[in-house]
Amino acid sequence: MQSDTTARLLITCPDRPGIVAAVSNFLFNHGANITALDQHSTDPEGGLFFMRLEFQTPHLDVSREILEKAFAERVAARFEMNWRIAYAADLKKVAILVSKYDHALLELLWRHSNRELPCTITQVISNHPDLRPEVERFGIPYHHVPVEKDRKEEAEAQILHLLGDTDLVVLARYMQILTPQFVARYPHRIINIHHSFLPAFVGANPYKQAYMRGVKIIGATAHYVTEELDQGPIIEQDVARVSHRHDVADLVRLGRDLERNVLARAVQWHLEDRIIVYGNKTVVFS
Amino acid sequence: MQSDTTARLLITCPDRPGIVAAVSNFLFNHGANITALDQHSTDPEGGLFFMRLEFQTPHLDVSREILEKAFAERVAARFEMNWRIAYAADLKKVAILVSKYDHALLELLWRHSNRELPCTITQVISNHPDLRPEVERFGIPYHHVPVEKDRKEEAEAQILHLLGDTDLVVLARYMQILTPQFVARYPHRIINIHHSFLPAFVGANPYKQAYMRGVKIIGATAHYVTEELDQGPIIEQDVARVSHRHDVADLVRLGRDLERNVLARAVQWHLEDRIIVYGNKTVVFS
Amino acid sequence: MQSDTTARLLITCPDRPGIVAAVSNFLFNHGANITALDQHSTDPEGGLFFMRLEFQTPHLDVSREILEKAFAERVAARFEMNWRIAYAADLKKVAILVSKYDHALLELLWRHSNRELPCTITQVISNHPDLRPEVERFGIPYHHVPVEKDRKEEAEAQILHLLGDTDLVVLARYMQILTPQFVARYPHRIINIHHSFLPAFVGANPYKQAYMRGVKIIGATAHYVTEELDQGPIIEQDVARVSHRHDVADLVRLGRDLERNVLARAVQWHLEDRIIVYGNKTVVFS
Amino acid sequence: MQSDTTARLLITCPDRPGIVAAVSNFLFNHGANITALDQHSTDPEGGLFFMRLEFQTPHLDVSREILEKAFAERVAARFEMNWRIAYAADLKKVAILVSKYDHALLELLWRHSNRELPCTITQVISNHPDLRPEVERFGIPYHHVPVEKDRKEEAEAQILHLLGDTDLVVLARYMQILTPQFVARYPHRIINIHHSFLPAFVGANPYKQAYMRGVKIIGATAHYVTEELDQGPIIEQDVARVSHRHDVADLVRLGRDLERNVLARAVQWHLEDRIIVYGNKTVVFS
Repeated sequence: MQSDTTARLLITCPDRPGIVAAVSNFLFNHGANITALDQHSTDPEGGLFFMRLEFQTPHLDVSREILEKAFAERVAARFEMNWRIAYAADLKKVAILVSKYDHALLELLWRHSNRELPCTITQVISNHPDLRPEVERFGIPYHHVPVEKDRKEEAEAQILHLLGDTDLVVLARYMQILTPQFVARYPHRIINIHHSFLPAFVGANPYKQAYMRGVKIIGATAHYVTEELDQGPIIEQDVARVSHRHDVADLVRLGRDLERNVLARAVQWHLEDRIIVYGNKTVVFS
Repeated sequence: MQSDTTARLLITCPDRPGIVAAVSNFLFNHGANITALDQHSTDPEGGLFFMRLEFQTPHLDVSREILEKAFAERVAARFEMNWRIAYAADLKKVAILVSKYDHALLELLWRHSNRELPCTITQVISNHPDLRPEVERFGIPYHHVPVEKDRKEEAEAQILHLLGDTDLVVLARYMQILTPQFVARYPHRIINIHHSFLPAFVGANPYKQAYMRGVKIIGATAHYVTEELDQGPIIEQDVARVSHRHDVADLVRLGRDLERNVLARAVQWHLEDRIIVYGNKTVVFS
Repeated sequence: MQSDTTARLLITCPDRPGIVAAVSNFLFNHGANITALDQHSTDPEGGLFFMRLEFQTPHLDVSREILEKAFAERVAARFEMNWRIAYAADLKKVAILVSKYDHALLELLWRHSNRELPCTITQVISNHPDLRPEVERFGIPYHHVPVEKDRKEEAEAQILHLLGDTDLVVLARYMQILTPQFVARYPHRIINIHHSFLPAFVGANPYKQAYMRGVKIIGATAHYVTEELDQGPIIEQDVARVSHRHDVADLVRLGRDLERNVLARAVQWHLEDRIIVYGNKTVVFS
Repeated sequence: MQSDTTARLLITCPDRPGIVAAVSNFLFNHGANITALDQHSTDPEGGLFFMRLEFQTPHLDVSREILEKAFAERVAARFEMNWRIAYAADLKKVAILVSKYDHALLELLWRHSNRELPCTITQVISNHPDLRPEVERFGIPYHHVPVEKDRKEEAEAQILHLLGDTDLVVLARYMQILTPQFVARYPHRIINIHHSFLPAFVGANPYKQAYMRGVKIIGATAHYVTEELDQGPIIEQDVARVSHRHDVADLVRLGRDLERNVLARAVQWHLEDRIIVYGNKTVVFS
């Protein structure tokens, strides 16, 4: 899917003629071979333009720093671009927060060990000690940070200290609500899995809510975490059929399979720099 | 799928040992051959038992009336059953209410003409004149009943008069809210198609709401109409994947396909006596 | 989705650096605003490169002819491109061939009347007279061309005469096998709907075959017609779950819904110039 | 989903009136409370009748042996039934055969540890040593039985010795073809996962075949193993959408997710006695 010489350029800017030509010329002239290109524009909302390019770097005629400086001056400024370049060789550092359920966590660890998730999993942090053996078996450090009711901020401070400059925080069924201060530290860099088809069944016990309402389809939603609970930009969703034969325990069991797949896809797309957030929505070039 | 000699017995009662034996014995002893049997019980909610039997009537040794009287006395009373028998030979009378969109209506008319919907479509009623030619082509009467803002009850009175003892009212994108008085006349006999994955996006413009929220899956929901808007028992739902590339018009277009299929399935199941309502939920023996 | 000023450029060529830059520059320099761009390359098979661009023509500084001539000389020749430009304003002429089943035909006619299929449906040709009223109701000419067993070529000659320079021939459950001579007249311009999940169940009675084999999922396949029966490039497929409860008639009924949706999508993509054929496969930029 | 006091009665017999009444009476009269009942009949094929009942045993008035003897004499003989009773308390003994791929194996082990698979996994047997640590971590014995090209029967003899009276053998991507002699020892008790949507792409390298054919949907199939390779009764199938963007490695990766889910469902249904085989097909009361 990708090699160490892959780089990705992500762009958001006002829509205007000539962007593709300017960007592709710039890259071509510096020896970068474009191997994938996706673009999108949103007319009704004022003409935003989004682009993702994958290019190969072996024949670059300049260093990363010079390439980026030149791009900023010669292309980005002219089109008022919000942009960044990510290099596949720079593996992202990922920390996973989890409570007691193991399914979403193990799915990520297994896919990572199978080379489906290009990243370094630096640590798993949990408010419970239960999953330590599972995690350490993969050679990944496990930190138990208990969260006591009245000392939540102390726990968060400890977690922040552990996280440091982590690139991505994944909440793999972490049953604690993060404070706005915490969330603000990692803008669009915290991914949560919600066990319902948002915006249906926000809040607690979504499977119970789904059962009581008698829905015929249940879902799971991976989204970036923002200050407002369950309201962040949706990255991915999936659903499964249910019937009157499924009680709440069945929904929980079926939902587990949804949760782990949806979360794994969302994390993979983030790691491959396929997601651009704008407003409260995402463009996913998958 | 069914012949004119098919009958269906639908039962709801407190769960208790011996029900299947009592019912199957009763039918066997009267010459009814059971050709399908579904049952369901809901432990956590106080032990309700649901059963649907399909049986063939050619070798019945008594008349319908005597059979039903005997069943009431010898079986139903003992188990405190809420029950009914429906005969496939008695085609249900169905009226369709529609506004201007033709997709859900045409799907029903086409499936009916293809013998997928065992019923008599007695009439189509609309608050607009537009769809008359489409409907009359199928040989079905079309009634135009305009609804003026301040004279809604007059219109409803006229519709009630037209409907008479209709067995089922289908709202195939009928853009008027029915009064509680109207709804009360046809309990669990009005099916609506809502163009969202309920309970997400209740109310007006669900596709617009879905677009604004940035969901990755849209849906449609067929439900029985109750006094509370968009809150009635859900019969069937289905979904389709969408992405940032779909604008509101695309969602509307994709949603049309969902709406017509979901509504058609719900109507078919109702006509085949596959649905039992309890509380605000359905058991669908499909 | 599209306006009359939309044009599409489709390119197949050996993969090489600089293609995107060359093409986007060329279009930009002639006043064409690129509004969509998809590309794909197939490394393992010798590096083929595929691209589809949508651009807007109102500010073109030259005529179509000059634009195309210039592109051929300045860009296409250099990169050894196989290419074409299609203009949305030039509605494609489509003929539909059908036998007795109406479902796939009606779906196309309904979607066309709903403006989902940008084309002119010039005629419907059938080896049976049955569907004439359905078709003429849409204001579309209906030609009955009977096919007698030993005089198939006579019938084909008549059909060819009717078709003339049709852009696309759609086989909407046309139950006659076309001769290689016929097929050769419309290379990659005849779309068929096969009622199975190809390559499973080629040949006759696929639903019967599926039933006998006891599969748990059935499918439908839209493909371009080539000389070899059921072997042409696949455009689109879809599936539905079945169980032991479904007899052959049920599979036929469920399959109808698959067939009409799969065929409609394939036709729409062809009309929007989203399909590139290479070898026996398709690239679908949907 | 089930308790230790659950039993299941599975019946296949010629279709005839009175079966449900006779069976349900018999169970009721012996104090067995029926908690689930599914039936199916196949008219077109000579009228076979299938039934699965779940009943609770705490109030049985006789021992298992006496119950079964009485059923055989008083009910089964009269209706020429092929039948068996399975008791949930008698956990089935399951052996898993695997080669080098871990995904299907780990899915089964994880679901088993999560109590989704009611059985005892007695051992894992592999022709490679690689997966030993993964398996032993779950406390399950791992046997490495190498298969040398010319000494296959020796290896099979060793495996048969290890298996003994195993109730179910699961081939979780075991890359050796079993001899007919081996298969005959476990009729309808060996489940295999085939990495294609059977009957498409039988034989080797199905993902490569699917890629070459250019299909738009790939699948996986769980089936009972019979003498004929890839021809046994299908238990479950599932599919995923693919496009021209997916190369063979992508298909393999997507297929892994299908394989583990499809195999897990098939194994679960077998363990819950939900499957009846007839001819080369299955009835799955799921």
